[in-house]
Amino acid sequence: MAPDTAPFVMRFDPKPVLARQSIFSRASEALIDSFAQAAQVVSLKKGDTLFLQDDDADAFYIVLSGWVKLFRETLDGNEAVIDMVTNGHIFAETAILEDSVHSFGASAIEDVRVLRLPSALLRKAITEDNAMALSMLTSLSRHRKRQTREIESLTLQNASQRIGCFLLRLCHRDDMGPIELKLPYDKSLIAARLGMKSETFSRALNKLREETGITVKGATVIIPTIDVMSSFACSACSNEFPCDDMH
Amino acid sequence: MAPDTAPFVMRFDPKPVLARQSIFSRASEALIDSFAQAAQVVSLKKGDTLFLQDDDADAFYIVLSGWVKLFRETLDGNEAVIDMVTNGHIFAETAILEDSVHSFGASAIEDVRVLRLPSALLRKAITEDNAMALSMLTSLSRHRKRQTREIESLTLQNASQRIGCFLLRLCHRDDMGPIELKLPYDKSLIAARLGMKSETFSRALNKLREETGITVKGATVIIPTIDVMSSFACSACSNEFPCDDMH
Repeated sequence: MAPDTAPFVMRFDPKPVLARQSIFSRASEALIDSFAQAAQVVSLKKGDTLFLQDDDADAFYIVLSGWVKLFRETLDGNEAVIDMVTNGHIFAETAILEDSVHSFGASAIEDVRVLRLPSALLRKAITEDNAMALSMLTSLSRHRKRQTREIESLTLQNASQRIGCFLLRLCHRDDMGPIELKLPYDKSLIAARLGMKSETFSRALNKLREETGITVKGATVIIPTIDVMSSFACSACSNEFPCDDMH
Repeated sequence: MAPDTAPFVMRFDPKPVLARQSIFSRASEALIDSFAQAAQVVSLKKGDTLFLQDDDADAFYIVLSGWVKLFRETLDGNEAVIDMVTNGHIFAETAILEDSVHSFGASAIEDVRVLRLPSALLRKAITEDNAMALSMLTSLSRHRKRQTREIESLTLQNASQRIGCFLLRLCHRDDMGPIELKLPYDKSLIAARLGMKSETFSRALNKLREETGITVKGATVIIPTIDVMSSFACSACSNEFPCDDMH
């Protein structure tokens, strides 16, 4: 076949995805190239496990599409959903700092594509290039701040306020309302992510309806006014609305 | 006064305290010296505030003695105790990565001495010395792991299990029992640290007594057998007993 009639092959170029990551914000183009060359696209079906807690961590990941659940399993068989990540989110990158084992498991809650990158390359980069170490420090620190807010929220907000906070994070900071939202994943997963049993979630959602006038039909939520929602949800939080966790 | 009769002045040498910190584990002696020369000992009385959330962060601290409460205040006036730190603990060191403002407040819950160190020196060190950046990454990552476990615990353990977990962390990993412990600070603060209202704490402590046979008199707790306590408290956790959070 002549070159000019060769079939057009969709090749995925990981460079823009990498360049958008804060850990690569100060990286040279050559360094991003080396990661791009080593990157692999992995497709997962709903329910597939990417890795389990305590597995050797020879790779880290960036989500290309779909939602990935990060979880820990307790000795009595329950599961703590420690995070839900989607498009553009990086995860498992800090395992290189933690004995190179995964401190949580990761599985696909729907069809998912992730970019798989070798941990060894990242370890080399932060050891040899101080700009990379500093970018990673900034990224880790931002994550720590987010976790601190989450501990605060689990400590002080009631269940209805936590759901309200979750919904507000789906809004944009200059939205006024009414706003129609689509829940990003199943209510049972939202409950787990917010550290609630399903029954608690249902009761709390009903209370939130009464307090803020929202309507919920399947996966669609309508928030009539952001003001009412934020004064209800954010009063038990140390961040003023709109906070850094919003878009 | 002749030099040989000069009064003996107790001078505090901060170098050993600094050398024990994991962020200085790869630091040269010259670097530790520069921090030691800039270090100041600050004494606080019970109730004194060291800094408030959103204050400019020009310093970070290492506790020399006593307990310091790290907290965030909500818009409706409640307080989330995000950590309690004592001898040897470093805090507020990551503010240099976060717009140089404190993301929490710090106050003394008893008479406290802390070592005050300039943030600018640390910023300079991690920028110029990759070994310092890597040590700080390791330290931040360890902290992140601890926070992840805490989110898990707030999500999955019930109140009695959380108190049990708190008590087990005061034991040594090879203790068998019976063990007599002294609570490190007020029960109301323990409740706040564990994210419980005082009433919840009292009820949960009673349930823990029934389940594990512990006795509580004032600040003294006797745990008859560690086995019974750990199988009660650790079943809703993803870490096997004894875990990394123990001494």
